[in-house]
Amino acid sequence: MPINDESRAKAKVVIDRCRKLAGFSEQQGGTTRTFLSPPMHDCHQEIAEWLNPLGVEVRIDAAGNLRALYPAVEADAPRLLIGSHLDTVPDAGAFDGVLGVVLGVALIEALHGERLSFGIEIVGFSEEEGVRFGTPFIGSRALVGRLDEELLRREDERGVSVRAAIEDFGLKPSEIFAARLKDDILGYVEFHIEQGPVLEELQLPLAAVEAVAGQSKLEVTFFGRANHAGTTPMHLRRDAIAGAAEWISAVEREGQRAEGLVATVGVVEPKPGVTNVIAGEARLTLDVRHGADDVRTRAVEDLIRLAEEIAARRGLSVSQETLSSQTSVAMDPILVGQIAEAIRKVGCAPYRMVSGAGHDAMILAEKVPAAMIFLRTPGGISHNPEENVEAKDVAKALETGLHLLDLLATSSAQQRRMKRA
Amino acid sequence: MPINDESRAKAKVVIDRCRKLAGFSEQQGGTTRTFLSPPMHDCHQEIAEWLNPLGVEVRIDAAGNLRALYPAVEADAPRLLIGSHLDTVPDAGAFDGVLGVVLGVALIEALHGERLSFGIEIVGFSEEEGVRFGTPFIGSRALVGRLDEELLRREDERGVSVRAAIEDFGLKPSEIFAARLKDDILGYVEFHIEQGPVLEELQLPLAAVEAVAGQSKLEVTFFGRANHAGTTPMHLRRDAIAGAAEWISAVEREGQRAEGLVATVGVVEPKPGVTNVIAGEARLTLDVRHGADDVRTRAVEDLIRLAEEIAARRGLSVSQETLSSQTSVAMDPILVGQIAEAIRKVGCAPYRMVSGAGHDAMILAEKVPAAMIFLRTPGGISHNPEENVEAKDVAKALETGLHLLDLLATSSAQQRRMKRA
Repeated sequence: MPINDESRAKAKVVIDRCRKLAGFSEQQGGTTRTFLSPPMHDCHQEIAEWLNPLGVEVRIDAAGNLRALYPAVEADAPRLLIGSHLDTVPDAGAFDGVLGVVLGVALIEALHGERLSFGIEIVGFSEEEGVRFGTPFIGSRALVGRLDEELLRREDERGVSVRAAIEDFGLKPSEIFAARLKDDILGYVEFHIEQGPVLEELQLPLAAVEAVAGQSKLEVTFFGRANHAGTTPMHLRRDAIAGAAEWISAVEREGQRAEGLVATVGVVEPKPGVTNVIAGEARLTLDVRHGADDVRTRAVEDLIRLAEEIAARRGLSVSQETLSSQTSVAMDPILVGQIAEAIRKVGCAPYRMVSGAGHDAMILAEKVPAAMIFLRTPGGISHNPEENVEAKDVAKALETGLHLLDLLATSSAQQRRMKRA
Repeated sequence: MPINDESRAKAKVVIDRCRKLAGFSEQQGGTTRTFLSPPMHDCHQEIAEWLNPLGVEVRIDAAGNLRALYPAVEADAPRLLIGSHLDTVPDAGAFDGVLGVVLGVALIEALHGERLSFGIEIVGFSEEEGVRFGTPFIGSRALVGRLDEELLRREDERGVSVRAAIEDFGLKPSEIFAARLKDDILGYVEFHIEQGPVLEELQLPLAAVEAVAGQSKLEVTFFGRANHAGTTPMHLRRDAIAGAAEWISAVEREGQRAEGLVATVGVVEPKPGVTNVIAGEARLTLDVRHGADDVRTRAVEDLIRLAEEIAARRGLSVSQETLSSQTSVAMDPILVGQIAEAIRKVGCAPYRMVSGAGHDAMILAEKVPAAMIFLRTPGGISHNPEENVEAKDVAKALETGLHLLDLLATSSAQQRRMKRA
């Protein structure tokens, strides 16, 4: 199905707007916009200027999230949330997060004032990346009632708490409770760049995300004996790096064992870490992800056992600590099916995939039916100024969004939900 | 052959003296004594107090080396050098270097005033470890005429040059030429702790060192593509750490391939080196040593080829830079044979080995017949406050030294050399 001219023009506007928002930055000549930093004001202001002509009022909730309701035909109708996050990593690209908000605005524009049986609330989350406070999803946590006192007390590197940052931005922490979602939510849809190479390899513009992978993070340290690299014969060594290397190869093989499994060692820190000394210690990290929790936990168990076997055989010891273990989060199957159907309607294969990265949709899924639409990411490049998205893919995403709104308006499942709401 | 009581008592004195010298330190509660730092004055003074009662005068040459001649029967007789270095690494043990000087003093004491057909010059080198100026062997270089202008201009971390350090110590750089060895040298003998585990494993107290291994140091960097650890499937990765790990295992296998070969990766530095990012780069170091240069260079060539094969197969690239390549230095075969014979005379197996670490003997060998005697090192531990040596091994070393002096006095080879001298 060819992309129509209107979509093509709108896609160009979407991309231009993303690039414009990228200019609101803490950083000269690059994009960095962390939780409620001053440029976030400009970002909110800019989006408000797009929405106000559509009769849509923008407000900022007490967690710093941008909230903008395009009303339904009836005043007490349920609402569909469309959004993503407006914060960025340091030296970011222009599309991670932002694209999901800007596409939401474009969808409302594309309705040309037509009111639906449900409202559409655009949400621009204040914080997803976890850069400023080391804790991600501050914005979406507020919507599900998980921005609690402990999190409000957390401090950034300069000793500013989340609470103080909210106050500094001109908001009232006492109103955070009011930011919570009511029980009138039809669902949450998040457009987001894939940030990986899968769709590009499959030559597909879009995918319906059916789950966010569970993730295990571990620290694994091999202990040997530091010794002189010149005077210690090979057979008398207890080389922590050599043991670590054997295990890193095992991690790679384990990752290749199951479809959809990924296993990564990203940190290797030998001690003392000098040319002429056999390492007495090597600290590694392990990151394992899969859509099915049993596949992930079994892989982690296998790898711990392998580390112990390798250590024992080499006269080393090994310690391991689980830094975090997050279960997989399923997206709402009905909403995923409708997204897949909408993708099919724009002439694309309705590919379903698991997201290897965490997203706000994962948090929203605790309370409301949530799902995501991934857009192909050129070169899989993200968290990088070279991050990009193709205009023709954005056009397909827009058309998919419009089909989805149609499907939601007519779907019997949603009708039932609306009646309940 | 049992150790006699006199040797046992002398060994205790040797160890006590080494521990006393360890107290002359730049560091509170530990031993650090770099090139011509103030505590080196105390160290020289202490040794002079041991030698003066024997009628041996101590002088400090212009390179800061302690030089003390125990005269021969005849005034123009050649001299045997016995010594090692008096500087230390930071937070050092008490025996590395120092033991070779203190054992030389003990040998002269054990002669009880008897004069030999050759003189014995005790040498305590000012610098072997290379800590202060990043260049080792400053002391021994002066004896072979290689303490040149370029080296004199080299500066330490505070911007003090070698020349200025010499002047600060009260010496005259203009007299460095006079520190060079004349052509009256019978040979150089260096007692030194093994600093490795070989003699301990073989349950032998001593070894004759027949060569100092050649050494190649390289930096090898694998380049892949940094990517998200969650969103990049295993088959689409170009993981620099995974490639590096495969190669580290190959380095270990290569080291095991030839007797006496050692191959070590001591540094692994991935970039970006964070938990959730596949490394785009991994910088490693390679240290390869062997007594035979062809064995070493072939191992290095094999490992470079393997790195290229691994990189090509994985879609990575690899760069390599040779940081240094030092050829093996053979010790004087006649002197090594005499040392082995002396070790046999004290009732020990005359084990011969290659030193994996560099020593002053390697520098002296450029000009004079040089050889070393290694003492067993408990646990192979060195460059560490726990560095130790057993009194019974020191006693055996002393007895070996006395036998060696006998052998040198009677050996026809040395006689011939003495006539030439």
